[in-house]
Amino acid sequence: MPELRKDPILGRWIIIAQERGKRPTDFYVDVSTKSKGGFCPLCPGNEKTTPPEVLAYGRNNGQANTPGWTLRVVPNKFPALVIEGNLDKEAEGLYDRMNGIGAHEVIIDTPHHDASFTHLPPQDLQLTFMAFQDRIRDLSRDIRFNYVVVFKNYGSAAGASLEHSHSQLIALPVLPRMITSELEGCLSYFCYKDRCIYCDIIRQELQQDIRLVCQNEHFVTLTPFAPRSPFELWILPRQHSSSYIDMPDSWLPSLSRIFSETLRRLDSCIKDIPYNFLLHTQPLRTGPLEHYHWHFEIVPKLTSIAGFEWGTGFYINPMPPELSCSYLKEVQL
Amino acid sequence: MPELRKDPILGRWIIIAQERGKRPTDFYVDVSTKSKGGFCPLCPGNEKTTPPEVLAYGRNNGQANTPGWTLRVVPNKFPALVIEGNLDKEAEGLYDRMNGIGAHEVIIDTPHHDASFTHLPPQDLQLTFMAFQDRIRDLSRDIRFNYVVVFKNYGSAAGASLEHSHSQLIALPVLPRMITSELEGCLSYFCYKDRCIYCDIIRQELQQDIRLVCQNEHFVTLTPFAPRSPFELWILPRQHSSSYIDMPDSWLPSLSRIFSETLRRLDSCIKDIPYNFLLHTQPLRTGPLEHYHWHFEIVPKLTSIAGFEWGTGFYINPMPPELSCSYLKEVQL
Repeated sequence: MPELRKDPILGRWIIIAQERGKRPTDFYVDVSTKSKGGFCPLCPGNEKTTPPEVLAYGRNNGQANTPGWTLRVVPNKFPALVIEGNLDKEAEGLYDRMNGIGAHEVIIDTPHHDASFTHLPPQDLQLTFMAFQDRIRDLSRDIRFNYVVVFKNYGSAAGASLEHSHSQLIALPVLPRMITSELEGCLSYFCYKDRCIYCDIIRQELQQDIRLVCQNEHFVTLTPFAPRSPFELWILPRQHSSSYIDMPDSWLPSLSRIFSETLRRLDSCIKDIPYNFLLHTQPLRTGPLEHYHWHFEIVPKLTSIAGFEWGTGFYINPMPPELSCSYLKEVQL
Repeated sequence: MPELRKDPILGRWIIIAQERGKRPTDFYVDVSTKSKGGFCPLCPGNEKTTPPEVLAYGRNNGQANTPGWTLRVVPNKFPALVIEGNLDKEAEGLYDRMNGIGAHEVIIDTPHHDASFTHLPPQDLQLTFMAFQDRIRDLSRDIRFNYVVVFKNYGSAAGASLEHSHSQLIALPVLPRMITSELEGCLSYFCYKDRCIYCDIIRQELQQDIRLVCQNEHFVTLTPFAPRSPFELWILPRQHSSSYIDMPDSWLPSLSRIFSETLRRLDSCIKDIPYNFLLHTQPLRTGPLEHYHWHFEIVPKLTSIAGFEWGTGFYINPMPPELSCSYLKEVQL
């Protein structure tokens, strides 16, 4: 059983997911040597090699775990957390731990092995964004969970271990530290100003127009004022909303279009740029929040993260976001 | 002039250190392709190729910036921050920024190009730990600075770009977010218990003896309860002290001995393991703190940091610290 442990100083939770029988030297894997090609468990026809699916679109009455799907969600075969069991929260002296209960799922974005997420047509991307909503809604019915982290690793430098386009989600019994910090920062601003800080940021960015990459009827994409990396990007809904699952279906096409445009602009600046994106949304067990605003953050993996950044949370970024923005806007799509 | 910018939500500062004339594609450097061998600016005889030294040991009345030294500290040739100028703090709408004033120095641990920090004799390591004290003391006289981050990147996977053994420091006008969070966590524990949390951790670890790697008269090395990585290690003084520069000279030999033993145990478990270490000490502008305890954290670079860890601060670690500890203790030195 994996275990969740809390750092008593920082309040940071970590997952101990022990892989039995591994020797110390087995951990040191150079990501650049990962094999490419060969058998793909995410491809149509190989449905039986994954754990049974929890969601599939497009199969029109076909049998579960067979081909014909346009998007498919399966539990991770090597999950960081397990779904069965009780939390059994306990102390060990001054430390706190609980069982590693959670869900770890893989969203297979497309049946096409060679399709790149960046170049999928917006109507196909839409399935991924819809699946995020469906899965968070379903997992929120499990009262053991407090948060669902939705993310994508694109490119091996960003941690992707399979070529076939996929996203991931992890449902957690505790709040990730970064989300707690974000909520605290937003609340502190709201207490002072009585306004959502993200709404204020959107207003200022629309007016200044120096970090605004693109926009449509419901969304804006901008390079944030204090980015961790060249070409870091945030995609936010124009209208205040704290919860991704409250997004109306009618916004899905505009979310997919702005996401597609954003990724294609990024790819035109740096071909096959590795990146991670992460959905930031409110915790499961709260009502709508006046002070929080859901959004996506896309962080390219361009600069190496060494001791300084790692240990301090203090990033050195060689490119101002205004310059990243101007490169992104110059792109002819 | 580099610039410091604050994320208005998280309070995280970042440095924008623009390298002029760089095109977007210039950023994507695979660390594994960095060249080895050839000219080394840190070697004796090449003193004129670095900026003029700010500290040197062992030269016995010899002329500055000539060979004969046993340890040498020079400003970084490509500093993330610059020493000359005013902070000029200002707002841009709801955002905050200031000039990127600071110091960025390289501590050349040894004159021997091929010597590995791990295998230096403890009496040589001692020079490095003494230099950390001397440089922090000197930089603390500059009232623009609030913190000095001292760290080492060991191995190219951990971000080292030069083979010759060196450590680094960055003096900052603002507090790194991780230190602020640590101070807050410690203060909150102290307010409740009236005890330093690190002192309590040391007491519990000495009693439990399941994560205690080694100890001597003044220091302990342990694998922390909630580590980010297999073989993460903390080295702490047994006696309460919030400031590294207050460490008495008489402790330097035992610090060097335990550091040497710790690194050699680590290296025996995984040969040439890449790691980062970071000194955690109190801010420059406070008196001694009852709630904070200076220490070193050594984090090996074994697992790849992907979207989940990056975006959430939630780490997945495949090895419990009790197991890391038992591997480290088994080593015959």
